[in-house]
Amino acid sequence: MRIAIIGGTGKEGGGLAIRWARAGHVVVIGSRDGDRARERAAELTRGHGAIAGGVQIEGGDNLSAASAAEVVVLTVPYAAHAETLRAILPAIAGKVLIDVTVPLKPPKVSRVHLPPGRAAALEAQEIVGPATPVAAALHHVSHAHLADPDAVPHCDVLVAADDERARTTSLALVRDLGLRGLDAGPLENAIALESLTPVLIHLNKRYKSPGAGIIFTEIPEGTG
Amino acid sequence: MRIAIIGGTGKEGGGLAIRWARAGHVVVIGSRDGDRARERAAELTRGHGAIAGGVQIEGGDNLSAASAAEVVVLTVPYAAHAETLRAILPAIAGKVLIDVTVPLKPPKVSRVHLPPGRAAALEAQEIVGPATPVAAALHHVSHAHLADPDAVPHCDVLVAADDERARTTSLALVRDLGLRGLDAGPLENAIALESLTPVLIHLNKRYKSPGAGIIFTEIPEGTG
Repeated sequence: MRIAIIGGTGKEGGGLAIRWARAGHVVVIGSRDGDRARERAAELTRGHGAIAGGVQIEGGDNLSAASAAEVVVLTVPYAAHAETLRAILPAIAGKVLIDVTVPLKPPKVSRVHLPPGRAAALEAQEIVGPATPVAAALHHVSHAHLADPDAVPHCDVLVAADDERARTTSLALVRDLGLRGLDAGPLENAIALESLTPVLIHLNKRYKSPGAGIIFTEIPEGTG
Repeated sequence: MRIAIIGGTGKEGGGLAIRWARAGHVVVIGSRDGDRARERAAELTRGHGAIAGGVQIEGGDNLSAASAAEVVVLTVPYAAHAETLRAILPAIAGKVLIDVTVPLKPPKVSRVHLPPGRAAALEAQEIVGPATPVAAALHHVSHAHLADPDAVPHCDVLVAADDERARTTSLALVRDLGLRGLDAGPLENAIALESLTPVLIHLNKRYKSPGAGIIFTEIPEGTG
């Protein structure tokens, strides 16, 4: 599958790109600055190209990355969320959009901040319209854990979506990251998923954790 | 410590009462119907009185239960939340109020519902005023697990509070339940805690779990 990671030069992007590329996907890193995305793609490929026959990671500006992909993953700071979505709008109609955005309000990033639309993913669905199904996912995996492709993060991934294709595509891509994905209900539940991230940031500070994660218990084995 | 459990004849109340009573606290179960609360207290005492020299569980109407206690725990359906708080208001000034309420909107209880004040606990703080510190806690422990006082639920307990006394009192009482309590940040983070409960309800249905719980990973040992 061809996956675009919009805002993919950020902290989360590298780990996602490497893990998906190693699982056999073609990953296109997008950035406002296409050159920067291409550099990052080349850097990641150099670092991991020797593994298992090479990995395919490309780069480009956000719009061309989105155009080239079947699934679009959005990992931008909340301040750039709406603007970035509008910029890639012509390229994403009908594609599954996986929104990883958390509406943090710097500098108080360990305090829940509800955006006007209650969740970034709900705002995204408003912007892209009903023909482009949105899933909210991957808010709780520490980038520190993702960055080492051989590490197995102790963290489940909740996926909220109204659309069945968005849900199943997201859950399959979570499995390809080496993580357990769980169906967390309708897209409205993105409110819960997004607002848990400031709590994890608080736990990291309060308990000096390198990256607190979340695991759900009493879920039957073999799920996800 | 004397602990009132307001709405204590409900599902959560029994398990909390037994566990705190066994830890040496005096528990007063409150209900709108004082007779019903006294019956429930007698029933719980009969069931567990033989253990470790007896347990002290009393009962009464909500107002007298709150009057008799140093710490007040609120476990009512959201529909009765504001009304119950107003009824016990004369009895709780200056006491720590632990709000367990989740703003569910039946019948869609596996979908996040943000109340007008964004969280039941934030609404509680508005109602009781600044002299009565509110903590939000215990939203994620399945009553099925609490009810067996010898079971060790695989579930952490997040505590959100602005007030230091409310936070430390709540964390200590969580430990007395046999659970790990974690400081989840300011009371505003109750938004995250409360909205996670519909997700857990969804997981229970979706994966046929007897009571999904939540554990935080990469928190140093000995915490809580």
